Amino acid sequence: MGKALGRKCWAIADNYLPGWSNGKLPDMRSHEAFCILNTSDQDAHVEITIYYSDKEPVGPYRVTVLARRTGHFDFNTLVDPEPIPCATDYASVIESDVPIVVQHTRLDSRQAENSLFSTIAYASND
Amino acid sequence: MGKALGRKCWAIADNYLPGWSNGKLPDMRSHEAFCILNTSDQDAHVEITIYYSDKEPVGPYRVTVLARRTGHFDFNTLVDPEPIPCATDYASVIESDVPIVVQHTRLDSRQAENSLFSTIAYASND
Amino acid sequence: MGKALGRKCWAIADNYLPGWSNGKLPDMRSHEAFCILNTSDQDAHVEITIYYSDKEPVGPYRVTVLARRTGHFDFNTLVDPEPIPCATDYASVIESDVPIVVQHTRLDSRQAENSLFSTIAYASND
Amino acid sequence: MGKALGRKCWAIADNYLPGWSNGKLPDMRSHEAFCILNTSDQDAHVEITIYYSDKEPVGPYRVTVLARRTGHFDFNTLVDPEPIPCATDYASVIESDVPIVVQHTRLDSRQAENSLFSTIAYASND
Repeated sequence: MGKALGRKCWAIADNYLPGWSNGKLPDMRSHEAFCILNTSDQDAHVEITIYYSDKEPVGPYRVTVLARRTGHFDFNTLVDPEPIPCATDYASVIESDVPIVVQHTRLDSRQAENSLFSTIAYASND
Repeated sequence: MGKALGRKCWAIADNYLPGWSNGKLPDMRSHEAFCILNTSDQDAHVEITIYYSDKEPVGPYRVTVLARRTGHFDFNTLVDPEPIPCATDYASVIESDVPIVVQHTRLDSRQAENSLFSTIAYASND
Repeated sequence: MGKALGRKCWAIADNYLPGWSNGKLPDMRSHEAFCILNTSDQDAHVEITIYYSDKEPVGPYRVTVLARRTGHFDFNTLVDPEPIPCATDYASVIESDVPIVVQHTRLDSRQAENSLFSTIAYASND
Repeated sequence: MGKALGRKCWAIADNYLPGWSNGKLPDMRSHEAFCILNTSDQDAHVEITIYYSDKEPVGPYRVTVLARRTGHFDFNTLVDPEPIPCATDYASVIESDVPIVVQHTRLDSRQAENSLFSTIAYASND
């Protein structure tokens, strides 16, 4: 334990917060998450930059993942400097001061049954 | 910001435009997207080549993603040199003059409830 | 065009052919596909080896993807040397004599609505 | 056959065991799997460490995947040193003494129809 694992820079190209939900709340609420694993012995100070199709990037948003912890974050909880609008195409870059692993998951419950996807984010070699 | 992130050549092996849709339009229309993130300070001039199982490749199709922007594109909006037929197996190569990140997402609403998948595309090391 | 793209050896760890289907056939039949893109100017001669949890590997199964073509193959069409049983855990290694890109997709229609996933397979560096 | 393929260290950042299920059991039970392929001629001795958001990591859990075999494991069968609670965010690191390939799959049947995702896990270069 305590061995740093992963990369310091990750990207997600297909971000989108579905505009509405169905089903039992809060479990079935439509949402989009970025999940971070920090296996190192140092806290990870993470900065998120949000890219849009029609305006300049917004950020950094900041979250911390303590040493030897995971943090599963909803994009719609990012409010400083400004909330991310629903039903809008965006993308994100996630940078950390220690190596981390990032996975991107969306739960879409706009119809009666939920639909779910998840993918390991793009790990930059740079 | 402004740091180029990603690769210049990406591939998707499982492309398929579902032949019909269910549910509230336009949100629930079956579609397939390639989502591009261009974090660099230069516009990305992107060329897409479509591969089929039974004929020569078609392309290049061209899209532009401005500097520090994301572009989420539906394959069925690619019409020049020719539209991609529905319900046909295909694959795609996405090449850019600056590094980009590409994610592949399909919404299939052929049954009453939608189904969704997404994966980071294959980033070529070449 | 004609530039070889990808790797010569790929792996899928989670293979499973769902045991039954619902919905309009053949579109909604439960199935599992390996999708190959061969961008090179040479035909790809591909060998698939199937790994099980409780017996020795079976193979090679053989398919060909012509130069500059994609091939989307259902695992349940692999019958020589023997069919793959349904509702059984397995895994696969896909090897080619030219570089290819491989994507793994499953459509599970065991319930009334289909569920779909897809991921780029693991590309071996070896 | 017998050629070792993959890496010795893998990570999954978005682990979550859904809290309930719908549909025909056991097929439609909500669950989360880590699927391992061991193509080598040596048995893989695998250690899993579970990371939480609010307490120290727990592990190692141990499984073995015999030479030239695949093993598809449910996280909820990991009970020693302690079971993983349902409806709790966690993450995992999967380490082996021989190279393996790891894929992460979740079946969520909390609503009437199941939803499925799968992604190749993050392969550490370290």
